[in-house]
Amino acid sequence: MIRESHIENIHRRLIERIEILGAISSSAESLTRVFLSKEMDIASRLIQSWMNTAGLVSNIDPFQNVIGSWPSNTAKAPSIHIGSHYDTVVEAGKYDGVLGVLLSIGAIELLQAEGYAPKHHINALAFCDEEGVRFQTTFLGSSLLCGAFDDSALDKVDSEGMSMREAFLARGFNPDNIAHIAPIIGGDDVFLEAHIEQGPVLEASGHPLGVVTAVAAQTRIGVAATGKAGHAGTTPHDLRTDALACAAEMILAVEHFALARPEVKATVGKLEISPNASNAIPGRADFSIDFRAPDLGRLRELKIDLLREIESIAERRSIKIDIQNIQETSHANCDPVVTKLISGAVAANTGQVTELFSGAGHDAMKIAETCRIGMLFVRCQDGLSHHPDEFAESSDILEALRSMADIIKRVDQNAFAHM
Amino acid sequence: MIRESHIENIHRRLIERIEILGAISSSAESLTRVFLSKEMDIASRLIQSWMNTAGLVSNIDPFQNVIGSWPSNTAKAPSIHIGSHYDTVVEAGKYDGVLGVLLSIGAIELLQAEGYAPKHHINALAFCDEEGVRFQTTFLGSSLLCGAFDDSALDKVDSEGMSMREAFLARGFNPDNIAHIAPIIGGDDVFLEAHIEQGPVLEASGHPLGVVTAVAAQTRIGVAATGKAGHAGTTPHDLRTDALACAAEMILAVEHFALARPEVKATVGKLEISPNASNAIPGRADFSIDFRAPDLGRLRELKIDLLREIESIAERRSIKIDIQNIQETSHANCDPVVTKLISGAVAANTGQVTELFSGAGHDAMKIAETCRIGMLFVRCQDGLSHHPDEFAESSDILEALRSMADIIKRVDQNAFAHM
Repeated sequence: MIRESHIENIHRRLIERIEILGAISSSAESLTRVFLSKEMDIASRLIQSWMNTAGLVSNIDPFQNVIGSWPSNTAKAPSIHIGSHYDTVVEAGKYDGVLGVLLSIGAIELLQAEGYAPKHHINALAFCDEEGVRFQTTFLGSSLLCGAFDDSALDKVDSEGMSMREAFLARGFNPDNIAHIAPIIGGDDVFLEAHIEQGPVLEASGHPLGVVTAVAAQTRIGVAATGKAGHAGTTPHDLRTDALACAAEMILAVEHFALARPEVKATVGKLEISPNASNAIPGRADFSIDFRAPDLGRLRELKIDLLREIESIAERRSIKIDIQNIQETSHANCDPVVTKLISGAVAANTGQVTELFSGAGHDAMKIAETCRIGMLFVRCQDGLSHHPDEFAESSDILEALRSMADIIKRVDQNAFAHM
Repeated sequence: MIRESHIENIHRRLIERIEILGAISSSAESLTRVFLSKEMDIASRLIQSWMNTAGLVSNIDPFQNVIGSWPSNTAKAPSIHIGSHYDTVVEAGKYDGVLGVLLSIGAIELLQAEGYAPKHHINALAFCDEEGVRFQTTFLGSSLLCGAFDDSALDKVDSEGMSMREAFLARGFNPDNIAHIAPIIGGDDVFLEAHIEQGPVLEASGHPLGVVTAVAAQTRIGVAATGKAGHAGTTPHDLRTDALACAAEMILAVEHFALARPEVKATVGKLEISPNASNAIPGRADFSIDFRAPDLGRLRELKIDLLREIESIAERRSIKIDIQNIQETSHANCDPVVTKLISGAVAANTGQVTELFSGAGHDAMKIAETCRIGMLFVRCQDGLSHHPDEFAESSDILEALRSMADIIKRVDQNAFAHM
């Protein structure tokens, strides 16, 4: 066992590092740190130095992934990877991604201080691009490390007109060499990710930590409702086909649909109307439906039901609608054995367990295509994320630190069939 | 009686003049003609020349109002003014305003051809600014001619940063002299305005002409609904305060309120939400309610009822709302005696009468503060207005021409108490 004072030191440093990374931004007013930027260079070198301090053998790959290794004595052992991303959205919070990166380093440091000898290779990973802000592509870093990078992403162009290929070349890396980068995640490996919850479930349940059972399947639908614009003062109500009133009924139907099905989330987040003038009946309303369910099959089934309701509202109101399927992402299940081990560790450390599924996407979701994953959520204030006020309590982070060290041990010691 | 061929000539010229004025625009693609512009200069001189052709004594005042006079033999007789405006909105239709101007000239020409000798002075009026596009002020021309111009409008600034005062000075007119311009409308005068309906009531009833009983009272209300933004994938529905879902329920309440009260029009025409991202629960929704009723007292009563519903929706959803009264305009009643004379003429000429109230504002609304008014509506296609596709049938315009000549005669011959 290690001394409490040592845990306190690691915890204090972790909190300090959150503040340090929170200051490395392309903007003076708020936190913005995007793929292949100067700020990512600075942050990557800091993370590497902290990995080195923790006794890891580290390197930064051409994508700006930072990898810190603690090799097992068994050379052919599979790996336990622990990590998250350190890029951010625009005007971000300090915890999203970074907390998971720093917890992986801190937990490993705790285990090393304890004199622990892992059966698996242990890797701390800091991924370069999960948010996808610069090129509108997500999971670039974890995709590369899984050997699943899609070359077509190289042609994506940022808001300045620079392609990802050009951005790599400008940094002295020829993207034609991506194929030669050996994947380090796969097979019998396990990937563990800690992340702020980005939602209010843990806060509402009063628990500092949550165990993720799955990352939800998600689809994004675009609805364009076309009625007829007209003069607000002269058009009788029984002769109107008001696109906004129609959209309003659909928005309430979406809300009602989700309220009646606890496993579902359905949100109209984006809405534009035309002509959008106070004295004009809206002739057109365009809105998005973000629709999530625990698994893809159920999502597709429910989507048919939801769209049937939308269509019947349009028909009753003589409104023409055009429905576009903009995006669909499959669910990712956390490994049940790994999840049980995480639950055991959380129960032992906090005395309680909340299981929940993640409505947001995470690197773990991508990695689940390649190996088993497990996820730990940390309570955050008001469920707020992607916002400068994003906050997680220092005491919750301490719980996460202790639990993560315990989780790594339990996963490492668990008698997987192949070990 | 005059010959049919003469009526046909006047009608044909009227239709040609609609096309001519429709081409005098500051834009090559569509029709835009605003206060104190070069295009208004050109249009005003054309209108003046047509007034002269009709045998009127004409002048253009410093506001660009065009006034054509047919004096009575009785010097002290009151006047019958007939007219409308010839400015337009941006990307306008050709009929809004202009039709009423040209019908006044055409109807007078018909009466002169008939050898009619009016008891009243007869004036054709073409007002310079009803739409208020340039300075966000309406009824400038009719206000001046009623002696009700509000000097504070001189400080209003157009989108180029030029004040109305500067615009007058640039044209060689010192606005300090406005006070010296004698009003020509008031007292025992009668004002008659023909206008396209800008709504679909006449089309639905199958009647070419309608008789306006009143111009509605109107109020504009701004509602700001504030809930809490959050992640669409992670925030459980029972913990959400979704500002858009709340606004949607309010929008349907507004619609339902109006559908249940045929005398009322209530429209949500403008809506903005924030953050307006597909994966974010809207934290804020700002929308307008355009609310109209036949008279101001009723409007105020009903507004209290409507806002009580809005407030109860907000309260039930734990949404904070802020309600702003942006604007309120009183109703204007058409004179019952004049309206009866108009109905008589329309019935005699078309065999049918539709009485309706105007939901849109008109110069007649301003003039009603000064003297008696009467209004004639002309059917327009699909109720469409303020749009390049605005259209009125030539045959309906012919009915309006005949009826307007008859209306002027009936009003002129009616034994008002003072005559």
